[in-house]
Amino acid sequence: MGVSRRRIRNLQPARPLRRLNINQEKHREVVAERSDKTTDTPTNTISEKKFYEILKPQSQCQSLAKTEYCPRVFNGTNKMASGFADEKNGKKCGRSPFVNNPHLDSMKEDILYHFNLNTGTLNFPAKFGDVKFVCVGGSPWRMKSFAEYIAGELGLAVPNAEYPNICESTDRYAMYKVGPVLSVSHGMGIPSISIMLHELIKLLYHARCTDVTIVRLGTSGGIGLHPGTVVITKQPMDATFLPRFEQVILGKSVVRSTELDGDLAEELLQCGKDLAEFDTVIANTMCTLDFYEGQARLDGAFCSYTEEDKQNYLAKAYAAGVRNIEMESSVFAAMCKLSNLRAAVVCVTLLDRQKGDQLSSSHDVLHSYQQRPQILVGHYIKKKLNASKKS
Amino acid sequence: MGVSRRRIRNLQPARPLRRLNINQEKHREVVAERSDKTTDTPTNTISEKKFYEILKPQSQCQSLAKTEYCPRVFNGTNKMASGFADEKNGKKCGRSPFVNNPHLDSMKEDILYHFNLNTGTLNFPAKFGDVKFVCVGGSPWRMKSFAEYIAGELGLAVPNAEYPNICESTDRYAMYKVGPVLSVSHGMGIPSISIMLHELIKLLYHARCTDVTIVRLGTSGGIGLHPGTVVITKQPMDATFLPRFEQVILGKSVVRSTELDGDLAEELLQCGKDLAEFDTVIANTMCTLDFYEGQARLDGAFCSYTEEDKQNYLAKAYAAGVRNIEMESSVFAAMCKLSNLRAAVVCVTLLDRQKGDQLSSSHDVLHSYQQRPQILVGHYIKKKLNASKKS
Repeated sequence: MGVSRRRIRNLQPARPLRRLNINQEKHREVVAERSDKTTDTPTNTISEKKFYEILKPQSQCQSLAKTEYCPRVFNGTNKMASGFADEKNGKKCGRSPFVNNPHLDSMKEDILYHFNLNTGTLNFPAKFGDVKFVCVGGSPWRMKSFAEYIAGELGLAVPNAEYPNICESTDRYAMYKVGPVLSVSHGMGIPSISIMLHELIKLLYHARCTDVTIVRLGTSGGIGLHPGTVVITKQPMDATFLPRFEQVILGKSVVRSTELDGDLAEELLQCGKDLAEFDTVIANTMCTLDFYEGQARLDGAFCSYTEEDKQNYLAKAYAAGVRNIEMESSVFAAMCKLSNLRAAVVCVTLLDRQKGDQLSSSHDVLHSYQQRPQILVGHYIKKKLNASKKS
Repeated sequence: MGVSRRRIRNLQPARPLRRLNINQEKHREVVAERSDKTTDTPTNTISEKKFYEILKPQSQCQSLAKTEYCPRVFNGTNKMASGFADEKNGKKCGRSPFVNNPHLDSMKEDILYHFNLNTGTLNFPAKFGDVKFVCVGGSPWRMKSFAEYIAGELGLAVPNAEYPNICESTDRYAMYKVGPVLSVSHGMGIPSISIMLHELIKLLYHARCTDVTIVRLGTSGGIGLHPGTVVITKQPMDATFLPRFEQVILGKSVVRSTELDGDLAEELLQCGKDLAEFDTVIANTMCTLDFYEGQARLDGAFCSYTEEDKQNYLAKAYAAGVRNIEMESSVFAAMCKLSNLRAAVVCVTLLDRQKGDQLSSSHDVLHSYQQRPQILVGHYIKKKLNASKKS
């Protein structure tokens, strides 16, 4: 049976295409015996003691499992010092802000694959060099809507104007720019936002941006809060209530700190007080890899626990200072910290998970809840830009 | 400083809204001391010995960490026996195919939140009852394109027809239906596909579907294969080359089998031979939580390892029978196994990761590579439907 060729034209490429980096290093040939036998390489997990040693504040250069990271010297204003020191080894790194990857230096061009942007064909400093605020959220529609909203707030709106999607040739992410504000979608879950952040951080680096603040705007399930409360994250925690993000690199487990910028959180809380329109609190946020079983929901395709088990789990989260649950904050905090980006997570709670898994509020009420992080962060951006004009 | 109310109308809700399930159980009130102190609850990881005990084939009811799962008795044709037995305890489960959640029985309606579909307002058996094949892939555009392609292949295409997106009121996922084929996008990464699969499995359950085959169509990085080779996954492996999917439920680590349907893989391989248009192999697939550091790429925002480290890691993967790397197969296999869905993963390799991280092929070549899983699975569906007409 043959396949009709007539229809093949309808198949579209899903991912943007990359071109060869002609300057890439010649890769060493690897010869290995073919085998279908699996190896029993266990994950080497970092000890808890070591983890807390690593989490000690002000330690700029941390030993993480087998790997050595050297974040840049941060002068407190997000401007990078001209020399970057590895405090542990006393060596100068000499690299640029945001990224930490010596291999980038040898690349003639860098293709931000999932944005479908290429440093070889786009002038990044001209296009993005003035970015001071990056707002990210799961939904492409919401981030377009936020771009339109912030344009109005900043007096940059043009009647009936369509804001172009900078990544329009791919459906992986959407990106909008309004003056100094970049609005970017990140999809759902840690892997999806992680890909976006790798490419966003490189975008800021290539564009030579400075003094950048980044905020995740999201929705979440609350614990012990009135629905509609806006939670500014104190620190993201994993599903065992530890303030950490664990990932596997070269088969080894690496634990990273999820510390966010405390001063920024306080400034955002003050914005909530300025507005006085809805409850705003600072609290810990639990970040999970799954929406149903991972958040103790009773309404997934599978559920092996009881209502009592669920309530006990949520009570433990509450006791650990967790007031809301979402799916991106831990890797967001970890990657922003590694990049020395001033970062915050602002999520509205759509329901109280101790009282149910489904939403009881009306469509209009839920709609208004979802606007609150945008309103809060819009107010913050406007306030900061007005202050910088006066100074 | 006030916030302009004029612009607030532009903010759109990002997630579909849920209505209260009025029949939901009354939830027990939980009282806990407020505290910001974190608790030191370690993840209880299942031992490797126990893990291999669990993985023993033909064990339908497995003890997974603290939880007990009772997959249904599978009669080999994906039709469920009328009584479902917990083989370990000898008890009848008596529940329906696909799902395994006693709480669903007490719900008057079920809102598939991220599809924005509701059993209370849509007749699921009428809308979806004839579905026999579900094809899923990361990109909404690609899944729309696949729907148009399969319509042509099956002779169901209407000239200039637009296939409506069944989930058009949300931008989380896209869904198209062409006769017995459902084409659904799942975004990028394990959490994103996991949310979609929970809701898809419930959709099939509510629609009373039978004899369903599900295939993930994707792109991947290859190891030791010519770019453009189509890999039918033998078994997904994690980043330490173990054939398992680990997730956290109620703060405890649960390990699930990633076994796929071997007969289906062989049938798909035969389709590759029938077509004789491109190389098709059966091999293990590594599934990671990150695209850059998690796949040993040298071009992310952060990279703390050398080219040699990368090559050593890829060589270990090769030795474990891994021939391609992607980001969704492990949870896909695990959830389909729990649901007794006949499942396969078919991904094309866009490059050989041992030779680089960026793509050297032209746009047209890469475009044609991305069509191969669709062509292969389109051929399979056509073949199966023709065979069923004859029998």
